[in-house]
Amino acid sequence: MTSESSLWPGPPRAMIAATGGSAWIAAMLEVECALAAAAEDAGVVPKGVAQAIAAASKSLALDPETLQAAGLRAGTPVIPLVAALSAAAGAAGGWVHYGATSQDVVDTALALVSRRASAVLREDLAGVARSLAALARTHRHSVMPGRTLLQHGSPTTFGLKACGWLVGVIEAHGGLAGAVAALPVQLGGAVGTLAVLGDRASAVVAGFAAQLDLPIATLPWHTNRVAIARLGSALAITAGVLGKIAGDLVLLAQSEVAEIAERREPGRGISSAMPQKRNPTASIEAIAAARRAAPAAASLLSALDHEQERAAGAWQAEAPLIVELFGLIAHAAAALRRALDGIEIDVLRMRANLDPAGGWAADALAAELAPSLGRDTAHQIVRDALRRSRGESLAAALAAEVRVSPHKAVLDVLLADPLAAAGPVDSLVDAALARYAASRLEDS
Amino acid sequence: MTSESSLWPGPPRAMIAATGGSAWIAAMLEVECALAAAAEDAGVVPKGVAQAIAAASKSLALDPETLQAAGLRAGTPVIPLVAALSAAAGAAGGWVHYGATSQDVVDTALALVSRRASAVLREDLAGVARSLAALARTHRHSVMPGRTLLQHGSPTTFGLKACGWLVGVIEAHGGLAGAVAALPVQLGGAVGTLAVLGDRASAVVAGFAAQLDLPIATLPWHTNRVAIARLGSALAITAGVLGKIAGDLVLLAQSEVAEIAERREPGRGISSAMPQKRNPTASIEAIAAARRAAPAAASLLSALDHEQERAAGAWQAEAPLIVELFGLIAHAAAALRRALDGIEIDVLRMRANLDPAGGWAADALAAELAPSLGRDTAHQIVRDALRRSRGESLAAALAAEVRVSPHKAVLDVLLADPLAAAGPVDSLVDAALARYAASRLEDS
Amino acid sequence: MTSESSLWPGPPRAMIAATGGSAWIAAMLEVECALAAAAEDAGVVPKGVAQAIAAASKSLALDPETLQAAGLRAGTPVIPLVAALSAAAGAAGGWVHYGATSQDVVDTALALVSRRASAVLREDLAGVARSLAALARTHRHSVMPGRTLLQHGSPTTFGLKACGWLVGVIEAHGGLAGAVAALPVQLGGAVGTLAVLGDRASAVVAGFAAQLDLPIATLPWHTNRVAIARLGSALAITAGVLGKIAGDLVLLAQSEVAEIAERREPGRGISSAMPQKRNPTASIEAIAAARRAAPAAASLLSALDHEQERAAGAWQAEAPLIVELFGLIAHAAAALRRALDGIEIDVLRMRANLDPAGGWAADALAAELAPSLGRDTAHQIVRDALRRSRGESLAAALAAEVRVSPHKAVLDVLLADPLAAAGPVDSLVDAALARYAASRLEDS
Amino acid sequence: MTSESSLWPGPPRAMIAATGGSAWIAAMLEVECALAAAAEDAGVVPKGVAQAIAAASKSLALDPETLQAAGLRAGTPVIPLVAALSAAAGAAGGWVHYGATSQDVVDTALALVSRRASAVLREDLAGVARSLAALARTHRHSVMPGRTLLQHGSPTTFGLKACGWLVGVIEAHGGLAGAVAALPVQLGGAVGTLAVLGDRASAVVAGFAAQLDLPIATLPWHTNRVAIARLGSALAITAGVLGKIAGDLVLLAQSEVAEIAERREPGRGISSAMPQKRNPTASIEAIAAARRAAPAAASLLSALDHEQERAAGAWQAEAPLIVELFGLIAHAAAALRRALDGIEIDVLRMRANLDPAGGWAADALAAELAPSLGRDTAHQIVRDALRRSRGESLAAALAAEVRVSPHKAVLDVLLADPLAAAGPVDSLVDAALARYAASRLEDS
Repeated sequence: MTSESSLWPGPPRAMIAATGGSAWIAAMLEVECALAAAAEDAGVVPKGVAQAIAAASKSLALDPETLQAAGLRAGTPVIPLVAALSAAAGAAGGWVHYGATSQDVVDTALALVSRRASAVLREDLAGVARSLAALARTHRHSVMPGRTLLQHGSPTTFGLKACGWLVGVIEAHGGLAGAVAALPVQLGGAVGTLAVLGDRASAVVAGFAAQLDLPIATLPWHTNRVAIARLGSALAITAGVLGKIAGDLVLLAQSEVAEIAERREPGRGISSAMPQKRNPTASIEAIAAARRAAPAAASLLSALDHEQERAAGAWQAEAPLIVELFGLIAHAAAALRRALDGIEIDVLRMRANLDPAGGWAADALAAELAPSLGRDTAHQIVRDALRRSRGESLAAALAAEVRVSPHKAVLDVLLADPLAAAGPVDSLVDAALARYAASRLEDS
Repeated sequence: MTSESSLWPGPPRAMIAATGGSAWIAAMLEVECALAAAAEDAGVVPKGVAQAIAAASKSLALDPETLQAAGLRAGTPVIPLVAALSAAAGAAGGWVHYGATSQDVVDTALALVSRRASAVLREDLAGVARSLAALARTHRHSVMPGRTLLQHGSPTTFGLKACGWLVGVIEAHGGLAGAVAALPVQLGGAVGTLAVLGDRASAVVAGFAAQLDLPIATLPWHTNRVAIARLGSALAITAGVLGKIAGDLVLLAQSEVAEIAERREPGRGISSAMPQKRNPTASIEAIAAARRAAPAAASLLSALDHEQERAAGAWQAEAPLIVELFGLIAHAAAALRRALDGIEIDVLRMRANLDPAGGWAADALAAELAPSLGRDTAHQIVRDALRRSRGESLAAALAAEVRVSPHKAVLDVLLADPLAAAGPVDSLVDAALARYAASRLEDS
Repeated sequence: MTSESSLWPGPPRAMIAATGGSAWIAAMLEVECALAAAAEDAGVVPKGVAQAIAAASKSLALDPETLQAAGLRAGTPVIPLVAALSAAAGAAGGWVHYGATSQDVVDTALALVSRRASAVLREDLAGVARSLAALARTHRHSVMPGRTLLQHGSPTTFGLKACGWLVGVIEAHGGLAGAVAALPVQLGGAVGTLAVLGDRASAVVAGFAAQLDLPIATLPWHTNRVAIARLGSALAITAGVLGKIAGDLVLLAQSEVAEIAERREPGRGISSAMPQKRNPTASIEAIAAARRAAPAAASLLSALDHEQERAAGAWQAEAPLIVELFGLIAHAAAALRRALDGIEIDVLRMRANLDPAGGWAADALAAELAPSLGRDTAHQIVRDALRRSRGESLAAALAAEVRVSPHKAVLDVLLADPLAAAGPVDSLVDAALARYAASRLEDS
Repeated sequence: MTSESSLWPGPPRAMIAATGGSAWIAAMLEVECALAAAAEDAGVVPKGVAQAIAAASKSLALDPETLQAAGLRAGTPVIPLVAALSAAAGAAGGWVHYGATSQDVVDTALALVSRRASAVLREDLAGVARSLAALARTHRHSVMPGRTLLQHGSPTTFGLKACGWLVGVIEAHGGLAGAVAALPVQLGGAVGTLAVLGDRASAVVAGFAAQLDLPIATLPWHTNRVAIARLGSALAITAGVLGKIAGDLVLLAQSEVAEIAERREPGRGISSAMPQKRNPTASIEAIAAARRAAPAAASLLSALDHEQERAAGAWQAEAPLIVELFGLIAHAAAALRRALDGIEIDVLRMRANLDPAGGWAADALAAELAPSLGRDTAHQIVRDALRRSRGESLAAALAAEVRVSPHKAVLDVLLADPLAAAGPVDSLVDAALARYAASRLEDS
């Protein structure tokens, strides 16, 4: 938003480049050229106009700051941009922007900029997914406590946990890619009637969309912002999925849990007060960026109230919000990628964190006992045995209960191996990895 | 949320019934029965168990208030519900809820409740769409000022405007129906590993989903809430689309504009202070409900941070939020339907609101002049003529400008008929109506 | 919002009563009576009118559902309420609502309802504060790990931690009480000009405010909603403070931390799958309610865009939102109160959770060494010693470092007692308890 | 956030300077120096240390980008800043940051940066207020339609309307100034216990606060973010108040209303398609900035869930959010100031927009008739007369109604002068101007 350097962490350079002022200017010029080409193909403007405008476009060296200043007065930077392009196009200048209105240019450029920003973001999301898939493969049998409501439950494996994260990333990326790809070309003219283009309007719209490889909407969508709200939603979901993973990492890195740690590097995660600290700073940075992104993205969802044929305020807020959002989500994705890169997994600690008495088997034991003894009785027997076993063997405590003796053999098996108690993790991990292999995030 | 009557308007009765305590209990029992049936089919539980549980389910008369009170202590109403069902199922009672956890039941019931709520909502959305399609057909040539940034622009027609609203409703409904249909069955067991079901887990999941006609997720989704966030997004978008239409109606009903009015009825839209008032109260009610819905829906989007294997707080907030949201959106849809029912359209006023001097043709005139005179000059000529013509004829003012004389014949045509200046409205209206005919909202 | 019972937990009965339809009707009638009294005192209406209206008010038995239905058509329930009161007041009926508009009645009634709701809420907030103050007194020396970024830092005490929570509650309650007390009487007449009351307007406003013991605004505030936004902010902050405490409780109750647990009761915190679970369900319920409250409250902050002299939608959304919010926050407060009531504090576990090697002293050790050795060197020495000491004595590891020998005596003291390392906790605890004693939450 | 120039309008330069990286570095160094001075005064650090640190601070030339990069790894820029300051301070270097933690520095610097940002913002808010006060004085008798629910109601004056806006600005500014002034100094040390400072902690805190002229909190507030949430609330309210004014301007500038227009300037408010347009672009820009600010500010309100002694993510999101918010609100204020500067008020049009038949008097007429004829009858008589009078004289229509003849004289007066019907506007305008004169926004 500003040209003053910030002290606070920001988006990766590639995202800044993809969504900055120069990228917008390039996209807008591309839109004007595509429009001229389509109009020429449809016979709306004379032969040669499109080439003249394209040549003028290449000759222009527009500066974002200058355009911003001029646009401020007019209400949109499209006006000075069109004026400059028109002036540079010589005799063809009168045909520049023919049949279009400013919002046509900004909305279509938004589709182009979003497509490029999405490609940049995909790099970091793919990097995150790659790390998660590797963790899933390596740790499919690394048993650890499952935690529900932040209490120990039955066991799970770290690989399956990584699969849960991975599926979230795949779904979020799929949704975002879909929302970006669905952003249609905008061409409505002054009030969405395509009046100037008359009976050749649909031909121009079709050609315009083809030039830019963008979809066509049923009608001009100047004040139907469903596509933008869906983009906002997909961005919020991406932020949320990244934040969920980072949040889990921070919980797993807690001193008492200590099952994971971010890579040890000089100066990383240190404290200005406490020399012993090893903070999961990349994860925390991802959380912070994701937290900022969610309300901003969600605000696009609350902003469908565009008045009449073109809005007075709601529309003008969109483009900078979307730039900000891609930046924040790229920031979160890059930070999470750093968090996962070289992450230390303490498999022994995971297993050690399982209740040595065998409390992790309680669910399986109760399920074994319930059919013959009834749910209430089964749960009560297991609960009582757990209470008696405090810190010691649940097997011994259960042995004292005569009603379980018919099940002794099965119970012994259940208590012997937490991995067995983690259930069909292989098939679940395989399903998630198959989904990954089929996804757009898997590198070819 | 409460059993105390409210003074403020609320959702239609049908939605209250579809999402109230009794509906949830019925859905949860259906889930337990489907689980038993699937487990029996997969050979996990003995033959006959499913039928015994189904019979027990039918015999139960569970009261929402009682279950709520018992659930409050346990942390979820599923626990007392399972206890009651288990007690009623006799010898089969130990097999009730076998392999499942509370969240499996609530999440799957949420999918069922959402499907029914969505069907109820469809009625009102279809009613809105029907009214809009009728307006589109009747008023496709009812010329009126197009308004951008709340200023008069080129002309449009009321029918095309109604088409813009209609496409929004179709898109919102399509998105909502899609998000609801995508809500998958939930079955993960204690920590999402399906441990108790072991190697028959995938068979049980498949049967469970088939029983309830719900899709299957790649993995249990206890803490991957992308599907819920997408539902929230779709609900927010529906609220936003309804609010946009209602907002436009209120703007068109302004005293100075007076192009539409809600149906005149005794006591409708009156003021406690001003006898002359005829307020568009149904539209305003729709706006109010939509405004309340948007942040609530968006908050689901910001709530993907479910910890580890099951969340402590974020999950518990979801079900009542979704109930509230369906209520608010049904409320908005019903109010908008009332606003549109019998709406008075003042076609003469629409035409009279067009600048009598012909200012509405400025866009077309400038487009005609620009190719030969250049954009700047063309715009300047039209602007100057407009200034000179204040309240009088733009044609006359233009005639005084020698540079336009070669274009006189075309300009005369453009200035003669605002409908012509509204452009290819027929093809746009036809496109929107074709989309409506192909949509899920068109009644068979 | 509905009369259908919900399955999900809701607000305490007292809050439902304080904000339900009947409470609103009573408040509105009180407003009309106060207006009549003030108008009579100012000589605007004849003597005896106020008494006749007061008598009529007492004679009315208005039903929320009937009024809601009638109000739906008119756009506000004030219209049928005024009609009923006017009809019941006989010859004085023409003076009912004299000089007022519907919004005057609703906004002033909102101030009254909020005052009562706030008093109800205070009960639960005071209960929470009482529990926290008791914890602060009991546990001022109960040493435990301080946790920053969810990593162990230097030691703190549980009593000081409770003080942090307590100060938050005091501040939130003070802010809420202030925001409620600042809600002014509303009297503007049709468009906020007080036209009907003419030159006696300010006398009527003053009398009206005095009757109801409410403050007076500079101007009628029909579309200046700063006071409402501040109420929304204060409600959001209250929700947030309650959620923060509940969140910390859930973190402290984690299986690996196990420093606190909610009271053990039959059926409390159990799991439908895992007999071993003892979930902090009341804390989680508080989190869930607080999470729902925050966006709703915050949405009032985003809703200052009331059009012209009275808003079309934004205003109509306010009253039900505020009812919902008081309900959610009372719900959160009651749940947190239950969480704290009988909470089990494991002081031995707190101490045991401190790093036995003495890592908790690192901050103090580094501060002792830095002045003579420099910050970097001091931090490096402590970090190296910590690494060497893994699980063993930090004192021993430090002893191997020749540069620390001049400081040996001080270091020995620092490493001997984590309570000493917790610093001046007594003065901090005393400061917090003094603030509590001076607050409006301390019971007399 | 980035160093890439944006195409979209942004904050005024003065705000960028006040909240950019260099401003933060300066504030952080100021904090470290103040801490050293306070510690020296309290006898915690040796004499001369504070001066050495102050000299080192002056000698440093820290670059935001370098510090950002180093801070990214450590998790906070305070760590490299302290390292640099310590290195520059020679023998005193070991005393730099003594007893403090990173968050102490950032939170205290946030208070300083907010104070300066608030001073910058005050300039534009004072400019807005000055314009509004001038409009209030000039147009206190400029009669215009009051508009409720966007329908004509009784008359008001443009001056009174400006007073409503003015009071909102004064209240918002007062609240913001209060929230900024309430931001306390932060000093808690590693985990909020002030352990290193021991029994001299309170003396150091007091001296630190005195050095910086900041208030002292009851306890360190590392995870009690009520003060930050209140700042967020005050920023959201400021945005909302500015957006409300800009929204009203856009409504008043509508083609059909045309009561105001932004100053006519070359290139201002033009359209790329429609030469006749004169868009209120500065108002629209203010709306767009305000719409972006509201959710961002509100998100601070939803972010009180800081974990334990210091948060993992919620805290890290705060500083950049607050920078962004000050920028957006300054942007909105500057845009609104431009909108008001030279605004054209069409007093004749305001009067002409009043219903020529006299419908604007309906409220007053009904109030005159109600006491003798009853409310219902009075309203019905006026409504019927209005219907009969369509476009013609309400006086004539009323004359046909025998029941009003006893009131003829009064009615004639009421119908003669809309200014009289606007009521006691002088006293209301005077009250608002008196409030302005007493406010912190009135220039001395």
